[in-house]
Amino acid sequence: MLQDALAADAARIQTCLDTHITGETDLSAAMRHALAGGKALRGFLVMETARLHGIEADRAVYPAAGIEALHAYSLVHDDLPCMDDDDLRRGQPTVHIKWNEATAVLVGDALQSLAFEMVLHPDGVADVAARSELGLRLARAAGQQGMVLGQALDIAAETADVPLNLEEITTLQAGKTGALFGWAATAGAVMANADPGPLQNYAAALGLAFQIQDDVIDETGDEGTVGKAVGKDAAAGKATFVSLLGLEEAKSRASDLVEQACDSLSLYGESAETLRHLARFVISRQA
Amino acid sequence: MLQDALAADAARIQTCLDTHITGETDLSAAMRHALAGGKALRGFLVMETARLHGIEADRAVYPAAGIEALHAYSLVHDDLPCMDDDDLRRGQPTVHIKWNEATAVLVGDALQSLAFEMVLHPDGVADVAARSELGLRLARAAGQQGMVLGQALDIAAETADVPLNLEEITTLQAGKTGALFGWAATAGAVMANADPGPLQNYAAALGLAFQIQDDVIDETGDEGTVGKAVGKDAAAGKATFVSLLGLEEAKSRASDLVEQACDSLSLYGESAETLRHLARFVISRQA
Repeated sequence: MLQDALAADAARIQTCLDTHITGETDLSAAMRHALAGGKALRGFLVMETARLHGIEADRAVYPAAGIEALHAYSLVHDDLPCMDDDDLRRGQPTVHIKWNEATAVLVGDALQSLAFEMVLHPDGVADVAARSELGLRLARAAGQQGMVLGQALDIAAETADVPLNLEEITTLQAGKTGALFGWAATAGAVMANADPGPLQNYAAALGLAFQIQDDVIDETGDEGTVGKAVGKDAAAGKATFVSLLGLEEAKSRASDLVEQACDSLSLYGESAETLRHLARFVISRQA
Repeated sequence: MLQDALAADAARIQTCLDTHITGETDLSAAMRHALAGGKALRGFLVMETARLHGIEADRAVYPAAGIEALHAYSLVHDDLPCMDDDDLRRGQPTVHIKWNEATAVLVGDALQSLAFEMVLHPDGVADVAARSELGLRLARAAGQQGMVLGQALDIAAETADVPLNLEEITTLQAGKTGALFGWAATAGAVMANADPGPLQNYAAALGLAFQIQDDVIDETGDEGTVGKAVGKDAAAGKATFVSLLGLEEAKSRASDLVEQACDSLSLYGESAETLRHLARFVISRQA
């Protein structure tokens, strides 16, 4: 049932993005390629927290599309040869493999612009103050104090003499994954001019659980199921939650975080049940 | 006098950007490096058209900082080995030379986010509807229908069998240079909820004149004065306004465009004299 809801919202988000990518150029084709095939977890967080706050889905799909465009941009750049150098993403060749590096740089750049276009689109968030606030929050979540900082710490860790410790890797992931999860999960409250505090707490725990599960999948999964290369971090001697905590302790930590995430939603009562299901799904997924 | 006004605004914009780049990491150092030493023409357009519409400089400096951050991001990515592969920019080593390619990708990404942070900053544009509108317009000017499209056409031209014709190169430059000039020159009107039409016409002519002069400098300038490599387009057999029109006709075309730009400002009378000086400066500059 959660899977159906996820798939329905992902399709809706995809349609919204498709109608805003114009032209039949290499650039537009590569942008569509980069946006295809994801689970749209972050977009779903926007849609679901919007529902929780009584915001229409026709409106919420715009910021949902925005966060998916932003996430897709980060993946395209992260996969570049000078970054993580990955050939496979979501079971498909990465943009620089299917096209070339210049196209991958430009696709990522254009997807970041598209993210702000979607968040600031007047057909999306109705209240103009909330729209502007969401745009500002996205800029901060995405930038040098948020996601890009996490990426920079990750790249620096690859050439560091000493592997990161648990505190450092938690800081890294708070930027790399946590910032966008935080933006997405609080979007509904911001759209409704409500207190984003409880959803921020939910997102912080969820984001960390998500990243621990990513490390678990990287350790235990196979490339066919996961849709991208696995075991790269371990092979490179990079610290992960699994290498630092061991597999069982990492799983247990992720499970505790999911309970913590669910507890943050007590204020919302039964109406937040889908968000609780989502939290449990995040640590049960194998891809 | 225009030079003094340009330098004063450039310093003010620089200070605004500096206070919003935090931390003492490679990332923040490289962001500051990428923002240093420019003429801040686009930022000046924002400041000057804001003055024209009675907007305080303390407010206008934020969107001015935003457009300079966006322009700086485009240069950092444009200089990458997979793009134009330039070692020198504004007389300094480019980011990927001074640091590395991964840092250059991330610096550009973070500068784009910073651009939207500045434009959407509540200390900047006071009217929230105008703020949101400027953010949306920036997303469109920067993205796949604006600047990035221009860049993609430029990259494609490098491997094309036939050099671009005048119409194609004009379309390319309308994206690559014109979109940001258009955003910057209309910012003052948008901030004041006034008709951006006349300033849009001014910007369209100015942007094209600017690009023709860039081609003239590339043909006639030396690296020491210009602060970056020159003559690359000619050496690569790429079409430029100079190769298509000849040097004298290109200069004459730029001069006509500057007159056209100045005529667009008739509505503003004497108060737009600085913008007219700026237009004449654009085609007299040697760097």
